[in-house]
Amino acid sequence: MSVSSPSKKAKTLATFVHVPANSDFPIQNLPYGIFSTRENPEHKRVGVAIGDSVLDLSVLAAEGHFPFDATFFAEPTLNSFMAAGKTTWDAARATIQRLLSTDEPTLRDDPELQSRALFNQSDVLMHLPAQIGDYTDFYSSREHATNVGIMFRGKDNALQPNWLHLPVGYHGRASTVVVSGTDIRRPRGQLQVDKADPSKGSIFSPCRLLDIELEIGIFVGPGTKLGDSISINDAENHIFGLVLMNDWSARDIQKWEYVPLGPFGAKNFGTTISPWVVTLAALEPFRTEPSFGPVQNPEPLPYLLDSNYAKGTYDIQLEVDLKPENGDYAVISKSNYRYMYWNMKQQLVHHSITGCSMNPGDLLGSGTISGQAEDSYGSMLELSWQGSKDIHIANGETRKFLKDGDTINIRGFCQGNGVRIGFGDCVGKILPAHV
Amino acid sequence: MSVSSPSKKAKTLATFVHVPANSDFPIQNLPYGIFSTRENPEHKRVGVAIGDSVLDLSVLAAEGHFPFDATFFAEPTLNSFMAAGKTTWDAARATIQRLLSTDEPTLRDDPELQSRALFNQSDVLMHLPAQIGDYTDFYSSREHATNVGIMFRGKDNALQPNWLHLPVGYHGRASTVVVSGTDIRRPRGQLQVDKADPSKGSIFSPCRLLDIELEIGIFVGPGTKLGDSISINDAENHIFGLVLMNDWSARDIQKWEYVPLGPFGAKNFGTTISPWVVTLAALEPFRTEPSFGPVQNPEPLPYLLDSNYAKGTYDIQLEVDLKPENGDYAVISKSNYRYMYWNMKQQLVHHSITGCSMNPGDLLGSGTISGQAEDSYGSMLELSWQGSKDIHIANGETRKFLKDGDTINIRGFCQGNGVRIGFGDCVGKILPAHV
Repeated sequence: MSVSSPSKKAKTLATFVHVPANSDFPIQNLPYGIFSTRENPEHKRVGVAIGDSVLDLSVLAAEGHFPFDATFFAEPTLNSFMAAGKTTWDAARATIQRLLSTDEPTLRDDPELQSRALFNQSDVLMHLPAQIGDYTDFYSSREHATNVGIMFRGKDNALQPNWLHLPVGYHGRASTVVVSGTDIRRPRGQLQVDKADPSKGSIFSPCRLLDIELEIGIFVGPGTKLGDSISINDAENHIFGLVLMNDWSARDIQKWEYVPLGPFGAKNFGTTISPWVVTLAALEPFRTEPSFGPVQNPEPLPYLLDSNYAKGTYDIQLEVDLKPENGDYAVISKSNYRYMYWNMKQQLVHHSITGCSMNPGDLLGSGTISGQAEDSYGSMLELSWQGSKDIHIANGETRKFLKDGDTINIRGFCQGNGVRIGFGDCVGKILPAHV
Repeated sequence: MSVSSPSKKAKTLATFVHVPANSDFPIQNLPYGIFSTRENPEHKRVGVAIGDSVLDLSVLAAEGHFPFDATFFAEPTLNSFMAAGKTTWDAARATIQRLLSTDEPTLRDDPELQSRALFNQSDVLMHLPAQIGDYTDFYSSREHATNVGIMFRGKDNALQPNWLHLPVGYHGRASTVVVSGTDIRRPRGQLQVDKADPSKGSIFSPCRLLDIELEIGIFVGPGTKLGDSISINDAENHIFGLVLMNDWSARDIQKWEYVPLGPFGAKNFGTTISPWVVTLAALEPFRTEPSFGPVQNPEPLPYLLDSNYAKGTYDIQLEVDLKPENGDYAVISKSNYRYMYWNMKQQLVHHSITGCSMNPGDLLGSGTISGQAEDSYGSMLELSWQGSKDIHIANGETRKFLKDGDTINIRGFCQGNGVRIGFGDCVGKILPAHV
């Protein structure tokens, strides 16, 4: 982003910090994350991504640059800031945008302050953005649910009777949500010997059908008390922001264990999220329009009925890149968050409708995001249609499922009117199973 | 417990604190909990139950009575003590038993110290014993799984093919685990209109089939890192202790929502646990014997094979008491922890086999504990056989499922050789649904 032009709009939106062309992190984005430096890795605090840099909000807070008590920016998680709510989020965003703008001398003209408050992203360590009290995963792409249903239960029973009436979800494992860059060990578990002859039982083995799931995760802001619930019109006030998510899945373990209580070991060995939480404020210009998304038919029950459904989600372009141990990245899927049938508001409302208390820092996965096109499927299970065809990657290689040494990166961004709101990387590499 | 007799054994095991006959908390028990006083409810710290009293371990720790750094007894959760491991647990238990014994003057002869360190249980507030990072629920009673399977899927598909090969489990909601005494609000959610005609969809309604599940919860001690797992022979070293648990369940919500990913809203509105964590050391004299429990056939895979299976669990007598709003308690079920097919070691090992990291304070529910006798079933779903027969309670009343105003108390104890190791109360009362 270059020096400000004289027009008012450009003035507001230009920064003195160098932002490379096509950066995920222009001044219009300003996602929050938790970082530390290599010299002192345990000193975690809140930062904002700007171009290739990180702005240390704890330094700005300590010097009184925020118009509110901003001590939470010195904490090692975003939970307190997430709990603070929309008024505080808006004030923080306005302050940070002003301090980074070309017109504001405070930081621009103070090299000493810059030396303390601005870091190169390549010099910092990123951590989980929040202490995740509970992690929930939904299953809200109609295309994904239909594809998997056809494979697991046949075409006639593909979509279960409840699917069009509620956002199906299940509780996941919070302890194994990890930040981008964390290696994932291939899990071991039980695999059924012969589905046609259950008397043959199962064997103990490393997973042979290791898969990804392309998802978006949302972080809950202000929570609720036990017994209370969130209304659809208030739902966005309870959502802090979004991250990319890879819900690694062991398909063979899953298939044997998942009846009747759902996935367990097949999902609890690792879930990778991107470190930068992109706020709803940053995504606002990229709300969907009626022509973009699915139509909900039958009409949801009143508690789930989103009168703003057509504009209820965001046009986030997504892609999955796969790199073998000694190879190059290749795109294996291109999808879009707008394909989701149930939006994030409906997911949150349904989650809390029983009186389930929600807490700041809770993470809700969208479910695998598949589109209608075959190259838009969000899992290798679908891309290889249960291993029946090859997924082409770089260097003439192919995959059906993941091999040891493979690295997956999920990327996501909104683009339009010369602005790109990106999510950064969501990377994980597969290590061989323990023997 | 009366004044010590001259025999060595009785000497070791008698306390100067008054312990009423049939108390759950003799000096052989010494369960840990988190308490505060009404005057200062936020000042939470670690206590031990003895008779009708609570011994404040933070006071004893501050005065150096433990042969190790015991500052964790001043913390508001047991997590750090749980993480400390068996050597510390054994040292703590030996110290507390000595300080409470009739032969030890330190506390016995110091009324001033007693006034600071001993409280009446009726004067204190009990809190959740741990910050529960993750809560998992298993499904490990063969009788319960068979009964529910018959009702939901018919006799021929009652026990799924995987059930005898692994302890089926699912991730639950940690944020809604509450301590005994917390009221439970009847949840609202979606109920299917007509199973025979799925096109009729669902309605939004308060739950009509509100149920209990009689369970034991185990608290994890030292944890594991992502990618590692726990071996069966080491499993007991990772278990801190046991509590009673009521896994409240909305059967009608469950039946509609649970395919294909398992129970969600039907379980996330509340799970009640007893406040006192009974340690494995206290339960040691009540290990089961070969004649007591089920036999595992087929033999589990090596990673789950417990060479000590016959003695791998505990003879804990359990009962469920129901009290209507203006009525008396009546016993509606009598069961026993020894009925479990998969024991707690096998559950923990299976949980971690994929590399799922376990953390101190994680809670693992046993699953509903049903025996073979009809009056030993651990849920009203089974006791009323899906609402087809009456459960008789006090004052000539009957129930099929829970009514508003009903209170459930789960009780549990081991008894033998003149000693009773009890768990205290696990109480919850049903409030009417929000309108």
